[in-house]
Amino acid sequence: MELLAPSDYSARLTEAVAALPAVDVAVTDCLGLVLAEPVIARASLPGFDNSAMDGYAVRAQDVPDAGTVLPVAGVVPAGDTRRNRLEPGTAWQIMTGAPVPDGADTVVQVELTDGGTDEVRFERAAEPGVSIRRAGEDVSAGDEVLAAGTRIAARHVPVLVAAGSATVRVIPRPKVAVISTGDELRSVGDELAYGQIIDTNAPMLAALARQAGFEVVHIGRSGDTAEAVLAAVEQASDAGADAIITTGGVSAGAFEPLKAAFEGGSEITFSKVAMQPGKPQGFGIIGDRMPLFALPGNPVSSLVSFVMFVAPALRTMAGRTTDIAWLSARVTKGWRTSPGRAQIARVRLSQNDHGLGVAPSGGPGSHLMGGLAHADALAWIDASVDEVTAGDEVRVVSLEGEFA
Amino acid sequence: MELLAPSDYSARLTEAVAALPAVDVAVTDCLGLVLAEPVIARASLPGFDNSAMDGYAVRAQDVPDAGTVLPVAGVVPAGDTRRNRLEPGTAWQIMTGAPVPDGADTVVQVELTDGGTDEVRFERAAEPGVSIRRAGEDVSAGDEVLAAGTRIAARHVPVLVAAGSATVRVIPRPKVAVISTGDELRSVGDELAYGQIIDTNAPMLAALARQAGFEVVHIGRSGDTAEAVLAAVEQASDAGADAIITTGGVSAGAFEPLKAAFEGGSEITFSKVAMQPGKPQGFGIIGDRMPLFALPGNPVSSLVSFVMFVAPALRTMAGRTTDIAWLSARVTKGWRTSPGRAQIARVRLSQNDHGLGVAPSGGPGSHLMGGLAHADALAWIDASVDEVTAGDEVRVVSLEGEFA
Repeated sequence: MELLAPSDYSARLTEAVAALPAVDVAVTDCLGLVLAEPVIARASLPGFDNSAMDGYAVRAQDVPDAGTVLPVAGVVPAGDTRRNRLEPGTAWQIMTGAPVPDGADTVVQVELTDGGTDEVRFERAAEPGVSIRRAGEDVSAGDEVLAAGTRIAARHVPVLVAAGSATVRVIPRPKVAVISTGDELRSVGDELAYGQIIDTNAPMLAALARQAGFEVVHIGRSGDTAEAVLAAVEQASDAGADAIITTGGVSAGAFEPLKAAFEGGSEITFSKVAMQPGKPQGFGIIGDRMPLFALPGNPVSSLVSFVMFVAPALRTMAGRTTDIAWLSARVTKGWRTSPGRAQIARVRLSQNDHGLGVAPSGGPGSHLMGGLAHADALAWIDASVDEVTAGDEVRVVSLEGEFA
Repeated sequence: MELLAPSDYSARLTEAVAALPAVDVAVTDCLGLVLAEPVIARASLPGFDNSAMDGYAVRAQDVPDAGTVLPVAGVVPAGDTRRNRLEPGTAWQIMTGAPVPDGADTVVQVELTDGGTDEVRFERAAEPGVSIRRAGEDVSAGDEVLAAGTRIAARHVPVLVAAGSATVRVIPRPKVAVISTGDELRSVGDELAYGQIIDTNAPMLAALARQAGFEVVHIGRSGDTAEAVLAAVEQASDAGADAIITTGGVSAGAFEPLKAAFEGGSEITFSKVAMQPGKPQGFGIIGDRMPLFALPGNPVSSLVSFVMFVAPALRTMAGRTTDIAWLSARVTKGWRTSPGRAQIARVRLSQNDHGLGVAPSGGPGSHLMGGLAHADALAWIDASVDEVTAGDEVRVVSLEGEFA
């Protein structure tokens, strides 16, 4: 079987999936989601001329000199719903955010007065147009305040909420189910017989999916038969998953339950990718439109496959970028690589005066969980390279964030 | 009142709080939490010698030449709980992860055989010690596999789960309550009278707290009296909050409800910080050990105060770093700053050949929500600087991630 380039394999997956259908979500609940439509302001911001300071609303011409004293007509607190009017030759005491009385053309901040309540004495002449936030100076009603495709961060929330709609049309967060396969697997806390191991892949993939910004709706496990795999997949689908990730059963052995369950059908294609680790991969759309990612079973291979292939496809379903957040880093300690396939190496990053440094972390085995825990990034080494040496520049992706 | 340096003010807050008491959490549920104790492996990894390949377990000396044929004694699937024994001059078919029969000293991968089930023919001489993962080669029972203080990411999950404890002692995620103050505030969806505005601060602060990795347990609002503030704070406390964030009511005006509620008491201290925006700040420990952060009410001031002061203190409570994730960026378009105070400017980042570029974004007003939405980072400009020019190097923190 021909080896596929990793980029071609990734493109095949991201092209096979699509953004989930848009839904209406409360504006206070859409952190991390992507707008399916632009957000249009229903009202102008600010909605009325209001004071930027605590102070006194006056006509500037009524305060021509230091020492001017004016009678105080009253107080305008924030939230005052009266439409107040300033009579010439008077002042209103006014609070930050309160509506400026009609007829006033400036606000003098309290620090430049004696703070009086019956009458107020000004320390200097007033300038017109100071400390008033004009209606509409931030946003005009009808303006597009956020573009379709924006991924909502906290900084978008004020204008999103102020735009005036209680809900907003967004692409929902993909719901992910994970299934590990293997008769040898037990759950943490179970007694282990000789030959059995604790299932680490399903918890790791669930954590990867959450870390990358998706929702995990089902964590399952399957024995090593085609029937067991199909039953586990049906359970995952019933749990409301938008996508299923399996591990194990995709390589060349006699008992490869994923292959047994799907090979020969039209749904899942099994491929070999020119990448180490992560060579054997399966992918397809099952049932109506459910993507199934069948990853190899070693923990390191599984993690690398998630970051390289699954996460970009899930991001596509979320309306987010397919791009991996590669950074440039300089090798501080070299290592040998396997020629003929791209190597996705476990590395540790360091900050130095020249930027980001990178050194290998842990041993070469894809089963080494201790070493994986200490790697805080993956480095991409091209297939053409068989040795990385100190000073080389390589691409790395952090394992701390969302990978994008 | 003397202006405090921002770093001194931040240190005061992080020193006044402490890591929350540790709790036991299921190992599958601790993504993003910090280990309160080291994790010690209960068992070795792997727990038994197992095959790294699908193939045949043999004694290497029994396969001295290409063309050797051996009878197949049986199959060892993954999860086989039998303690199998290899008789000299025979082979066991074996699957990846399956226990290597006693007496076998190597595994020949299936691709180097004819794949027979009754007898198997080898394509070349076997080498001893190949494709066997030795018990304990990854981790030995009793090893510290993760240090206290580690913040759990997906890459830590395999070894954490495999270490064998169903729960792990971690510092819980701080539970945060947010309260906005102001008689002028209404909720999104409410009809607005003249003089009223939609409350954007409480939703923004809730989003900031979630984006930074904390849990939001209460979103409240208070009117502009001391009694209303105290009632809202009590409600937040009853909701199980570990920390309370308020906005508004901390500056110099006549109606400053936070000051009215707490000033003169011993609990909350109101300060002026040499920073723009975000000068007026309040902080203290109320009741038994509840930190209360009283932020200024403008949306931009509130966001900046959260990133600069509140998030580092909440991270301390979570056992995480107090450090802000400052990056270095080069100014591509200059701007003027207010002298005498550090400026925390809203900026947009760009990637160019020389690294990260930074340009100002939006207008100067702290009430401008439209501009805030388009800034994807904050830049720190020292108090001594009154103009930033193209080519200057400045520190920036992204508004996309966790700020740390």
